Amino acid sequence: MRIGIDLGGTNIAGGLVSDDGKLVYKTSIPTITDKGEEGLLSAISDVVKEIITKAGDEKITCVGIGVPGHADDQRGIVVYCNNIPFVNTDLAGYITKETNLPCYIGNDANAAALAEVRFGCAKEFDNAVMITLGTGIGAGLIINNRIFAGCNGAAGEIGHICLYPDGIECNCGRRGCYELYGSATALKRQTREAMENNPDSKMWEIAGSLDEVNGKTAFDAMRLGDEAGIAVVEQYTRYVATGVLDIINLLCPECIIFGGGIAKEGENLLGPIRKIVKKECYSDYGRQTQFQIAELGNDAGIIGAAFFGE
Amino acid sequence: MRIGIDLGGTNIAGGLVSDDGKLVYKTSIPTITDKGEEGLLSAISDVVKEIITKAGDEKITCVGIGVPGHADDQRGIVVYCNNIPFVNTDLAGYITKETNLPCYIGNDANAAALAEVRFGCAKEFDNAVMITLGTGIGAGLIINNRIFAGCNGAAGEIGHICLYPDGIECNCGRRGCYELYGSATALKRQTREAMENNPDSKMWEIAGSLDEVNGKTAFDAMRLGDEAGIAVVEQYTRYVATGVLDIINLLCPECIIFGGGIAKEGENLLGPIRKIVKKECYSDYGRQTQFQIAELGNDAGIIGAAFFGE
Repeated sequence: MRIGIDLGGTNIAGGLVSDDGKLVYKTSIPTITDKGEEGLLSAISDVVKEIITKAGDEKITCVGIGVPGHADDQRGIVVYCNNIPFVNTDLAGYITKETNLPCYIGNDANAAALAEVRFGCAKEFDNAVMITLGTGIGAGLIINNRIFAGCNGAAGEIGHICLYPDGIECNCGRRGCYELYGSATALKRQTREAMENNPDSKMWEIAGSLDEVNGKTAFDAMRLGDEAGIAVVEQYTRYVATGVLDIINLLCPECIIFGGGIAKEGENLLGPIRKIVKKECYSDYGRQTQFQIAELGNDAGIIGAAFFGE
Repeated sequence: MRIGIDLGGTNIAGGLVSDDGKLVYKTSIPTITDKGEEGLLSAISDVVKEIITKAGDEKITCVGIGVPGHADDQRGIVVYCNNIPFVNTDLAGYITKETNLPCYIGNDANAAALAEVRFGCAKEFDNAVMITLGTGIGAGLIINNRIFAGCNGAAGEIGHICLYPDGIECNCGRRGCYELYGSATALKRQTREAMENNPDSKMWEIAGSLDEVNGKTAFDAMRLGDEAGIAVVEQYTRYVATGVLDIINLLCPECIIFGGGIAKEGENLLGPIRKIVKKECYSDYGRQTQFQIAELGNDAGIIGAAFFGE
């Protein structure tokens, strides 16, 4: 048995995970951010201790913690996370001190990718990239069945490869980053813009108002045959496909896993991407990169973190 | 001892390589392409046999062959190479039949990358990407000290990540590919365009004529303070840096190795790239990706190929 923790901006979710990747107990508390680093460290430690108590006589071999930001997996340090009061925080050291268990940390996107490759939709593959279309675009790289985190733990920042060198300014310092065009946030922006340009679009009925637009609005309109909705989805899937093609031409992974809310569209998302990739990818010889929709949902972050140590 | 072969469009170069990466004997014959697949297979086999003879009593463990195109490293098949009469050719099988030695094949860019990481400029690193700025842009990916060739041997086609989605049409099927902006070929085009727009530029004296422009023309003009030359180099290094940033944000390799003719410019090339990367890369925490200029030159293809088998 092992413990996995998924530290999010809203909740600290954790669980007891069997060595074959089953989540056998799960718990969650709100992420407190108003008591600073010490308060949050102590809250995470409390979750771990609760799970240890639940485990009873079961032997626990390690704790793994996925964080929503930059983790130095080699040193066990949380370098920086948006909205979370950790800066160069020795999270692994703290948990080991409190629990006497080996503790490993890593990025939450890497945790989800590892879980999907070991136990989820990509079980038959050893090399995969999971891209999560959410507020931004995150990615986890699995190479030879292990996380590849690069020289400082920050590999997988696929949201910040460049789509448009002269495009929208990104707060990372570049222009035209992938996530400014392919994230759920970007899709919502594109949907609102299309609504403003198309007062007769069914998207107005579907969403109610500009403020209520979500990642489904344009897809729902497309399903009703709404032309503006169709155009938004076409343009959006082309943006996503552009980054997907970059990954394929550079890495030829066996599999690309799509996660995040938008991935729930399934073939409505993957179908157009498949077409563009088939037409434009560099090599059409032999095995081609397969596309999968993530299947472990929110549990992936807990399950994957539990396997950070190997 | 092992044998490495670098199959090029012009020459078949081969050599005897010691287990610690020293090239102890080297030979070369022109690449014959007018006798079809059989003629070329037989020529390669002759080179291998010549090296075996030279080796005398030395035990040879394997043959490795780098090809300038798409190799299926798993099956030993040359899928396709521009200008070489191999299509789905069982090159490894042929050489093994002729010599009774295990034979491994792979892409020549991967061979060069492996040589530089094992024995050249990147010896202290285990994870590196070598990009070669030549006719196109090729790349070799070394992860955990081994070649990463992806699911069908075609990983590393970094020349075909996208810089400008609406840019110049590429013969790969995409638009705006990296190599259309960052290769030596692209630099020559950019140089000629700048000359046409700047009749007073020193580039005219340096090159003699548009037809004689080469990859050094703009750099030479820059060294003389020529404004048009400076502008060409600035724009070109920005193009190269854009792809370099994509690699860093996605993979955070320990090292990026620059090869090809343009890399001979050394700090004139790397200096501006370093500045752009420092300003725009996603993570400035901890270890940063180092830049190196390839140091094994043409021998890298032979030396690296000799280690394909491991």
